[in-house]
Amino acid sequence: MKRLAILGSTGSIGHSALAVVDAHPTRLSVVGLAAGRRADDLAAQIARYRPSIAALTSDDDLPALREAASKAGTITTSGADGLVAVATHPDVDIVLCASSGTAALEAVLAAITAGKSIALANKEVLVMAGALVTKAARARGVPLLPVDSEHNAIHQCLHGRQPGEVTRLILTASGGPFRTWPASKLEHATPEDALRHPTWQMGRKITIDSATLMNKGLEVIEAHWLFDVPADRIEVLIHPQSIVHSMVELKDGSTIAQLGVTDMRLPIQYAFSYPDRWEAALPTLDLTRSAALEFASPDLDRFPCLRLAYQALRVGGTMMVALNAANEVAVDAFLAGRLPFPAISRVIDGTMAAHDVQEPATVEIVRAADRWARDHARALAGELELKV
Amino acid sequence: MKRLAILGSTGSIGHSALAVVDAHPTRLSVVGLAAGRRADDLAAQIARYRPSIAALTSDDDLPALREAASKAGTITTSGADGLVAVATHPDVDIVLCASSGTAALEAVLAAITAGKSIALANKEVLVMAGALVTKAARARGVPLLPVDSEHNAIHQCLHGRQPGEVTRLILTASGGPFRTWPASKLEHATPEDALRHPTWQMGRKITIDSATLMNKGLEVIEAHWLFDVPADRIEVLIHPQSIVHSMVELKDGSTIAQLGVTDMRLPIQYAFSYPDRWEAALPTLDLTRSAALEFASPDLDRFPCLRLAYQALRVGGTMMVALNAANEVAVDAFLAGRLPFPAISRVIDGTMAAHDVQEPATVEIVRAADRWARDHARALAGELELKV
Repeated sequence: MKRLAILGSTGSIGHSALAVVDAHPTRLSVVGLAAGRRADDLAAQIARYRPSIAALTSDDDLPALREAASKAGTITTSGADGLVAVATHPDVDIVLCASSGTAALEAVLAAITAGKSIALANKEVLVMAGALVTKAARARGVPLLPVDSEHNAIHQCLHGRQPGEVTRLILTASGGPFRTWPASKLEHATPEDALRHPTWQMGRKITIDSATLMNKGLEVIEAHWLFDVPADRIEVLIHPQSIVHSMVELKDGSTIAQLGVTDMRLPIQYAFSYPDRWEAALPTLDLTRSAALEFASPDLDRFPCLRLAYQALRVGGTMMVALNAANEVAVDAFLAGRLPFPAISRVIDGTMAAHDVQEPATVEIVRAADRWARDHARALAGELELKV
Repeated sequence: MKRLAILGSTGSIGHSALAVVDAHPTRLSVVGLAAGRRADDLAAQIARYRPSIAALTSDDDLPALREAASKAGTITTSGADGLVAVATHPDVDIVLCASSGTAALEAVLAAITAGKSIALANKEVLVMAGALVTKAARARGVPLLPVDSEHNAIHQCLHGRQPGEVTRLILTASGGPFRTWPASKLEHATPEDALRHPTWQMGRKITIDSATLMNKGLEVIEAHWLFDVPADRIEVLIHPQSIVHSMVELKDGSTIAQLGVTDMRLPIQYAFSYPDRWEAALPTLDLTRSAALEFASPDLDRFPCLRLAYQALRVGGTMMVALNAANEVAVDAFLAGRLPFPAISRVIDGTMAAHDVQEPATVEIVRAADRWARDHARALAGELELKV
């Protein structure tokens, strides 16, 4: 029996993770749940899974939660400390980090120090603090198992191979809803347009990141930290059908790919079951019923966010923190209708240009760079705001 | 340094194997060469690679060969014994079996008994005597490394995985030159039509087998013996672009595929380098420049040879010998212009229907079934002959 803590249990990945638990009740149990909001949803999860501990990181609606928790015998906590308490609970074997944004960084580091296996569905943790997190995981001998479908695919393709065999990692990208839009039309793209993702059902922030290709840029950085491969050996291929989840090119020119249906339960289950593999009650891939598989190079002129991400990875240090923070601010402003779509990359570019790069030797340095970049990005976003 | 014996050195695979030797002169050396015919070609190979031993299994032109051999200090032999002498030479580490047809069976068994690693590019050996060959290899702890691009791909996809993880092997097939031909047109297909293979450059026999899909049927049987998977978990998918060389479906529904350019040097080098992997001086796969990848189920009505191969595998024993022998006879007759294309499957079907299945416990039983089936198939082919 593997005992889980799920950070971000009320989000899209959290729900899929609990579906995996439902499918494997004799193999998985839920010890801890943490959510940023949606207290009602969390209360229902507590009633159903009866975890030892639950955290709501905002303080809203905590009384409603306490009632459910009291019935289930669940300890409740709140705030950032609550997240750490869930992630480091002594009964937990695996921490699934599926909360969005940067809030989970300290909790992940604390879980690693406590010797928990990490299943990582959050990009920002590695983008902000990849050096700190991977160093801590290596020092503690803790596995970092990627849940993002692309990195999960690469993990599967690399399984059993030597690092010296690998020449390139190839991350596939659906291309998002604007793949075929001309630059002139992108000027007028609305949040509604951007939220119409062609192949994956995901949260709002990550769906916008898919539309700008920043999601793929963050994944390039994530791949660098997870697999210790430099930027110039990580490639992005547009693959609109989202069936090939990613690929690895080996030194003899052979390419190994992982394919599957687009359902996040598969990579989540892989991370939970690893190094074993469990059966899944999901439809298997039927390539005879799928559209032909197409591949193309990404257009960095129409989607400059991907270029900015490569640039941040090459510069290194806190430049990746600045990239990520500026992106979050810009995406928020776009979703709120205050920023036109092409201004997202301009806010990031401007923030990076002004950023004074440091070695991210401590969480404090990372947090300081994050705060600086958010302030700077907010000011830039204000200048670029839509005149209503 | 790995020391090679190449059975079938003057054929298509033999030439590719020597190109791999040329690319890795410090890693590979040629100890033995054997060819069925093309004495001039063999003489040139002897002069260049100076093997310890060479065999021409026909006795034609042996004097010309002796001259080259005498200059190179190479011992020459002939006949079936010559093939065995090359395959079991004490200095040989790896035997590449790339001779076509069934002549190499005894040589492969002798090489296994002598503890050589086997790189297998010949289908007939496993189709005729899979039980004998795999039992001998297991008993002696000798690796059987597949060189056929499909099985080589599956070997790469399986690497590092447990047998219990695998639910299906998926062999891809280009579909051959008649993929889109209606049944009525197939009646009049000529050897010239059939030899126009869309993606691979291969020998004549295997190219006709590609046109009938018998090649894929033989590969299904081969896959059964190599990977110990039953017929109903081996699937064939038509994939006209021949970029995905084959796939493995795992128990969680995840599919692992191997992709690459269509060049036999890659699987040959893989078999020579295994368990290491060497760089290759070949163009790498560029999916952005390839056509979209399509997949379809094979049409067993237009291509009954594939159905017959599944049937032979399910029946087991010497039925696979009968299938293979009848196919060789029928393909010869078709290539000689004596048999119409659709009669190939009729000859095989008729031979199988009349075959008295035995356990292939010895090579003698296998050889006897092979002789019976050839005689029976010749008689059937005579009845179906084109009236000129």
